[in-house]
This record gives sequence, C-alpha cells and structure tokens, in this order.
Amino acid sequence: MPDPQFFHRAGPFRLVEIARLIEADPPEPEAGESLIHDIAPLEAAAPGEISVLSDARHVSALAQTRAGFVVTNHDLARHAGERRNLVFVKQPRLAYAQIGHLFYPDPPLTAGIDPLARVHPTATIGQGSQIDPGAVVGRRVAIGERCHIGPNVVLGDGVRLGDDCRIGANTTISHALIGARVTVETGVSIGAQGFGFVPGPTGLLRMLQLGRVIIEDGVEIGANCAIDRGATEDTVLGAGTVLDNLVHIGHNVRIGKHCVICGQVGIAGSSVIGDGVMMGGQVGIGDHLTIGPGARIAAKSGVMRDIEAGATVGGFPAIPIKHWHRQTAGLARLFQKRETAG
Amino acid sequence: MPDPQFFHRAGPFRLVEIARLIEADPPEPEAGESLIHDIAPLEAAAPGEISVLSDARHVSALAQTRAGFVVTNHDLARHAGERRNLVFVKQPRLAYAQIGHLFYPDPPLTAGIDPLARVHPTATIGQGSQIDPGAVVGRRVAIGERCHIGPNVVLGDGVRLGDDCRIGANTTISHALIGARVTVETGVSIGAQGFGFVPGPTGLLRMLQLGRVIIEDGVEIGANCAIDRGATEDTVLGAGTVLDNLVHIGHNVRIGKHCVICGQVGIAGSSVIGDGVMMGGQVGIGDHLTIGPGARIAAKSGVMRDIEAGATVGGFPAIPIKHWHRQTAGLARLFQKRETAG
Amino acid sequence: MPDPQFFHRAGPFRLVEIARLIEADPPEPEAGESLIHDIAPLEAAAPGEISVLSDARHVSALAQTRAGFVVTNHDLARHAGERRNLVFVKQPRLAYAQIGHLFYPDPPLTAGIDPLARVHPTATIGQGSQIDPGAVVGRRVAIGERCHIGPNVVLGDGVRLGDDCRIGANTTISHALIGARVTVETGVSIGAQGFGFVPGPTGLLRMLQLGRVIIEDGVEIGANCAIDRGATEDTVLGAGTVLDNLVHIGHNVRIGKHCVICGQVGIAGSSVIGDGVMMGGQVGIGDHLTIGPGARIAAKSGVMRDIEAGATVGGFPAIPIKHWHRQTAGLARLFQKRETAG
Repeated sequence: MPDPQFFHRAGPFRLVEIARLIEADPPEPEAGESLIHDIAPLEAAAPGEISVLSDARHVSALAQTRAGFVVTNHDLARHAGERRNLVFVKQPRLAYAQIGHLFYPDPPLTAGIDPLARVHPTATIGQGSQIDPGAVVGRRVAIGERCHIGPNVVLGDGVRLGDDCRIGANTTISHALIGARVTVETGVSIGAQGFGFVPGPTGLLRMLQLGRVIIEDGVEIGANCAIDRGATEDTVLGAGTVLDNLVHIGHNVRIGKHCVICGQVGIAGSSVIGDGVMMGGQVGIGDHLTIGPGARIAAKSGVMRDIEAGATVGGFPAIPIKHWHRQTAGLARLFQKRETAG
Repeated sequence: MPDPQFFHRAGPFRLVEIARLIEADPPEPEAGESLIHDIAPLEAAAPGEISVLSDARHVSALAQTRAGFVVTNHDLARHAGERRNLVFVKQPRLAYAQIGHLFYPDPPLTAGIDPLARVHPTATIGQGSQIDPGAVVGRRVAIGERCHIGPNVVLGDGVRLGDDCRIGANTTISHALIGARVTVETGVSIGAQGFGFVPGPTGLLRMLQLGRVIIEDGVEIGANCAIDRGATEDTVLGAGTVLDNLVHIGHNVRIGKHCVICGQVGIAGSSVIGDGVMMGGQVGIGDHLTIGPGARIAAKSGVMRDIEAGATVGGFPAIPIKHWHRQTAGLARLFQKRETAG
Repeated sequence: MPDPQFFHRAGPFRLVEIARLIEADPPEPEAGESLIHDIAPLEAAAPGEISVLSDARHVSALAQTRAGFVVTNHDLARHAGERRNLVFVKQPRLAYAQIGHLFYPDPPLTAGIDPLARVHPTATIGQGSQIDPGAVVGRRVAIGERCHIGPNVVLGDGVRLGDDCRIGANTTISHALIGARVTVETGVSIGAQGFGFVPGPTGLLRMLQLGRVIIEDGVEIGANCAIDRGATEDTVLGAGTVLDNLVHIGHNVRIGKHCVICGQVGIAGSSVIGDGVMMGGQVGIGDHLTIGPGARIAAKSGVMRDIEAGATVGGFPAIPIKHWHRQTAGLARLFQKRETAG
C-alpha cells in the first residue's frame, strides 16, 4: 500500500463504477456491488482490493493472489484456469493506470495566493488556482483555472498558462505560451535565451533570441529540464509529448505530438521532430535535422543526419538499428578471432 | 515581428545611425535619413524595416523581399542584381546581431531591493542594480552597478559580481568571484562542492573543497548548468567563454577565453581547456586532460587523452576527425560487404 | 591559503591532537606540543603548517617544502632522506582529508527559522537546525537536529530528514525519507514523478507513481541532480553512496552502499546497482538491468546488459574493458592499414 504520509487514497468504489471507468465487460450484478478499497500488485493485493494482470510473465502470481478482482484481457485469461473474479478489458495496462488515478487523484488545491507569493497586479489568476509561497508572477501573466503554481516558481512577464496546469517548485518559465493540462516538474528552466553567437570585435556577440516557447495541451516535462526559447521562430512542444528529466531542447526546435523523450536527451537548435517519435535516454540530435514521424532512436545514440519516418536507428553515429547490431556483433567476432589466432 | 508581450522594441532609428553602429559604408544622404522601425528576416520584412543577407542560400529571398534596406557584403551582393537599397558591411551576421540589440535592448532595470528579497546588511549593491523578490544575498556580498539579480536567486556569503551582470531566477552562486557583463541563466548552480572522496574507516570521506569559482568578464552561462568550486586551486572560466544548458564543470577545471561549450557537455576535474576551444553537445572530457587552444571537438565525443592545439577530433574514444570518419565509413563497408557475401 | 572570504579556519591545534585524529604514530613529546596553524600543499606550506605527501610523484616537492610537519607513510618516506619532521600514518590521503575537516569545519549553524521561511505548523524541527529565508516546509515534515535547510529549499508534505543533513539552496524534495548526515547540493530535484506512460484513447496516460525516495545515511548528492520517486516500489540510494552533478536516477532504481556515480550519469528505471559500484561521467544504464557489486564502468559507456560483480566494462554498447580497448586499437590499425595500402 502506498505510504499514507505521501499518498491519499480515495474510495472505496463499487466494482461496477470501476468497470465503467475502464470500459470493461460489465460484471455480474452481485459482484458489481462489491466495494473495492485499493489497487495493488497481484502479490500484495488483499481480498477487498483490485489488481491487474497485464503481462504473461506474471501469470504465476495470478494463481497465488488474494485480490478480490483481477483486471485482464481474454488472451491472458487463458492462463487463469477456472477463476471467477476476472474483469475483462482490452488494454489491462491502461486500465491499471486509470484505476490508479481513480484511487489516488491529485491532491485537492487550496485556491488562493499565499501571502509570501508575489503576484503582479496586472496578472490574472483563474478560479480555483493555488499560488504557493515564494512564487513570483510577473506582469500580464495569465493563469487558467485550477492551476497549481508551486513554491518558488517564477513566471516571467507575459507568460500564459491554460487550465489545470501543475508547475513544480523552483521552476522558472519565461517567454512562453502554455496550453491546458500541462505538467512541469521541479527545477525546470523554460524560455531562457538560445545558444547562438557571432564573432565580433571584442568576442562572441549573442544573436538576439526573439522567439517564444509554445507548449501545447497535455505536455509533461520532467525535473531539471532546460527548454530554450526560439531565436526568430518559436520553440514548440506538440500536444501530449512527454519529457523525462534533464532534457535539453535548443532554440527553434519543433517537436511533434505524442513524442516520448527519455532522460538527458539533447536536441540541438532548429531540428524538427515528427509526431510520435521515441528517443531513449541520453540520445543526442544534431542541429537543423529532421526526424520523421514515428521514428525510434535507441538510447545514447548520436544522430547526425535526418531520419526517415518510422525508422529505428541506434549507435554513434546513428545508423539503422539492424546495421548497428550487426556492426557490434561483427566487431566482437573480428577482434576475438584475431586474439584467438594470434 | 517578435511577440510584443515578451519583447519591447526601441526605435525608430535613422539608417545613418544604424550604418554607423555596424560600421557600414555610409549610405547616400537622402537614404541615410530614412526611418527604420524594425529588423526582420528577408521573407517577413516590411518597407520600413531593415533585413540582412548573410548567406548565399538566401539569395532567392532577396529578390522577393519588401525590406526597406538590406545589409550584406559585396561578395553576396553580386547575386543581387541592380538593387539600390543595399548597405555594405564586412560581416553581415555580426551586423544582424548588432542591429538586433539596438532594436531589442535588455529591458530597463528598476533599481532597488524588493521588500521580499533578503539582503544582508553587510552586502553592498552598486548603483542602478535591481534585486528581485525572493533573492537572498549573503554576508559581505558585493554587487556591481546595473546588475539584475532575478527572483529567488541565492548569492552566498562573500560572492562578488562586477557591473552589468544578469543572474537568472532560481540560480544559486557561492564561493565565486564574477567579473563584469556576465550572464547566468535560470536554475544554475555555481560554487557547489567538487567531487573528490577518499575511502575511510566508515565509508567515503569528502576531500575538502577549498577553492573558488572565478568567472571572467563577458562569460555567458546557460540554464541549469552546474559549475563546482575548486578543491585546492580555483575553477576558472575565461573571459568571453559561453556555455549552453546543462553543462557540468568539475572542480579545478580551467577554461580559456572565448570558448564555445554546447549543451550537456561535461568536463571532469582538473582539466585545462585552451582559448577558443569549441565543443559540440554532450561531449565528455576526462579528468586531468589538456585541450590545446583552438581545438574543436565534435558533438558527443568522449575525450580520454590530451588534444593538441588546433586539432579537430570526434568519436568515442575521440580521435582525429578524419580517422573517425574513415572508421565509420569503413565499418559500414566492412559489414555490409559481409552481409552481401554471406 | 584558502580565501578567507569564503572559508573560515579553526585552530591552531597541537601536533599531538592532530596525530591522534589521524591515528598516526605518536610524535615525540616536544614536537607533539608544536602548534599547527593550517594545512597546505607541500609547495605552499609555511613553517607553522602541516602538509601531506600521499603520492610518490610529489617527492621532489618534499625536498623543498617549508612545512613544519609532513604526514606520509613509511613506504613514501624512503624517498625522504634524513628528515625528522615526518608524521606516519597508514593512509596519507585519508589523513589529509581528516586534517582538512579539522581546520575547515562546516560553518556553525544559527538555529532557528528565518521570518521569510514558511514552515507549516505541523512540521517538527530538531534542536539546532537552521531554516533559511525562502524555505518552504510542508505538512508533517520532520527535520532532525543540526540540519541546515538552505535558502528557497522546498520540502514537500511528509518528508523526513535525519540529523546533521545539509540541503543546498533552491533544492526541492518531496515523497522522500532521508537518513542522517546526508548532503544535497543546490538545485536538486528529489521525488518528482517517474517516467512511465501507457497509450490511452486521448494520448499517453501517466502511470501512477506511488513509491518514495529512500536516501540512507551519509549519502551525498551533487548539484542539479534529478532523482525520481518510485512507481510501485521505492527508489533507494544506499548508505554512503555519492553522486556528482546532473545525475539522473529513474523510478524504482535501487543503488547499493558506497557507490561512486560521476557527473551526468543516467540510470533508467528499475535497474539495481550493487554495493561499491563505480561509474565514470556520462555513463548510461538501461532499464531493468542488474549491475553486480564492485563493478566499474568507464566514463561515457552505454550499458545495455547486466554486468557481473567485480567486472570492469567500457564502450557503447559496454563490453569487458579489455575487449573494448582491443577493438579500439584494432579499428585504428585496420583502417590505418587500408589507408596506407590504398
């Protein structure tokens, strides 16, 4: 059970309510009235709790579980024998996430501005939003409804946030237009100057950085990321895209919708990332490149050329992943052979 | 045109003033009196605006532009046909940056200490400096004139800043002596303990970190960088050096003047980087290495040996870049051939 | 001598006290009463100061030093000739660190809560702890004795810290149980949501992140690190483990005791790191891997498989380090030869 010091459980809920939420086959009427008190892994669930089987590797746990009900799909259920307490959905992992949010919703907000926050009189704050101590909200900032602006967050002049945004402590945002349902974790920098210089008579002179950061609906940004504003155009993160921690996004980068960008990835200036691209941790993308929609880039790869839509690449420099695996295996053989021969 | 919510335009300026600033050939008297209202790319510029042609790839845009005047050099102008509204300089890109700063200067400061800042009575603040809400300024800190200390910035005891420095929100600086015209973006950590330990009877014992961070004039540091103070000697960033986001600088590192360090580079302890070195993104430099002046290191390279002055290297481990390219191409041939043969 | 603007020296101490601290052979009675005023490198030490010879490479400096006493071991002392002022220990480097901490202890705390801090009435603060301006301490937080909570630190609801912890400015901690003698540098994010999503009807849905971060006694965490809380289990950092700057630790990662994790390392979710593992800078560890106790991973390596206890690996993908060196050398020969032949 999650530590109640940190996580507050809602409920209980009747099985029939849960089934409706997860679009499950309707349970039998009597079972449907059962009260469910929590969600838990198969190994840990108690009789009044619900669990999920989403992977054939956990079938053995299913035989042992004390869970009151288990959500799964018909395919996995073939392994389940004669059990009667199964709840059928199409996507058990999705159901698990949905039930989780039902039992452990975001903590409720306390609407209002803390006396230790500093909100400029020209800023507008939507109904139900909570502004925490130490937050600094600049001129003409517009914050939507039901937003949570965490402690010591800094929102620069003119920044706009849609409804239901959550901005983590010690994060700074400037020069940005942010949609609805955007989550930004702690320690993030959004809107700093991009990195462009020209040699001048007394050294490097910064090129002006006159673009913005556009963050569309539903984007989630991990801790300590740094996302620069555009130079001439805008830096854009498309709707539903998610970033892990410590990701670096250079100026003018345009990222499509529903991309998954893992920890410590760096994307250099002006590159364009299509919809649905996935990047493993520590990937580097050079500047002015185009990564086609649906491309997948293995962790730690260094991308120095455009990538076609739907391609899967790996290595440094990144090449089609089959070639990379062949090179890796080939190198091992090559120098092992020589060693044996020598 | 840059979003006026975020960027405030100065001007208009007469062409003759602009020509003087960028050291252009003097315009003809009548043209020189033209009022210029903004700077814009060739595609977007209106008749009252000035634009720049700095790259032969954009020559076609020149033919179409509605810009009142176009800054370029004589070499690029050969492509321009019979145009009369050209302004000639030696370095068009530099001129573009200079005109940009003329139209979009840093926002003016509001001198004084916000009531929600905490400035120790022994600190001294130069004339014209602005200290924002939530800033915490320690004992004996000395801040020069016309500095901007952003919201929630923390300056530890004894820190010194020269004139015209700009420190971004949520940045922490300790144990540091900082020159004039230094820009530090948001979320940066300067002066934390270096990473040195010795095994002891109950575990690892931190070696004392008794050095400082010395940041010379004109240095610019990107968002969320971490720059450790020295252990016995100082960590030094030479004048005019620029760092992109999320860069890690270990203790005792000495970086020369006018270096360009791209995003997510890491430089391990005690390495010495000469003047004018350029490092691409995600480069790693091992500890106790010497990188000669003017060396160039390709993105994502891992440097495990000293690099000679002026050398260009790439790969992991980094080797002369021609060798690396040859290896990369050779590997592709080698395993492609085998595949075909097999 | 360390800059007195930043570092405050204690002392003087009698040699006999120092000898006892470092478990040295007892000095002769008369020498033991000598007052020692500082610790300094051999080259810089004055007669009233103590120095250390811990490496044969510095033997020439020993001949020249003006230091009053020099700590070393019997093996190194063979190079020292007829000197009388040597102090013998088993581990001179450890002695150097210990004497350093004697002369330069952490600055004394000023117990109490700054009026510009915001501490929730349900939080408990141990005796002697100092809470700096801008700090925000949530509900039911429990802080041990003699802790230093730096400026603008945010401690989320329910967080617990043991005695003698030091939390640097602008750091955010939530969902975490932290032991005694833990040091966290500036700009760190601990306890943010882990990175796990499942595709849903309207895009990616975050899997609930219901675990905690457990940080055991004596852990030290560098600037701007990001350490996610667990998803179902906890994220754990074992006792005495040390992290350099900008390290990324994914959800559910379990790191053993006394590990050394250098700058910009990233460890993906659910991987298990044994005791005493060492990772060079920019290493990447894939998810769900097991790294055996005592393993050593060369800087910038990309680990894609489990690593056995005690193994040393390098490269991308990481392989036994001897193989990697052989490949590196072999590749150089291979393509150099072809070049010559061609």
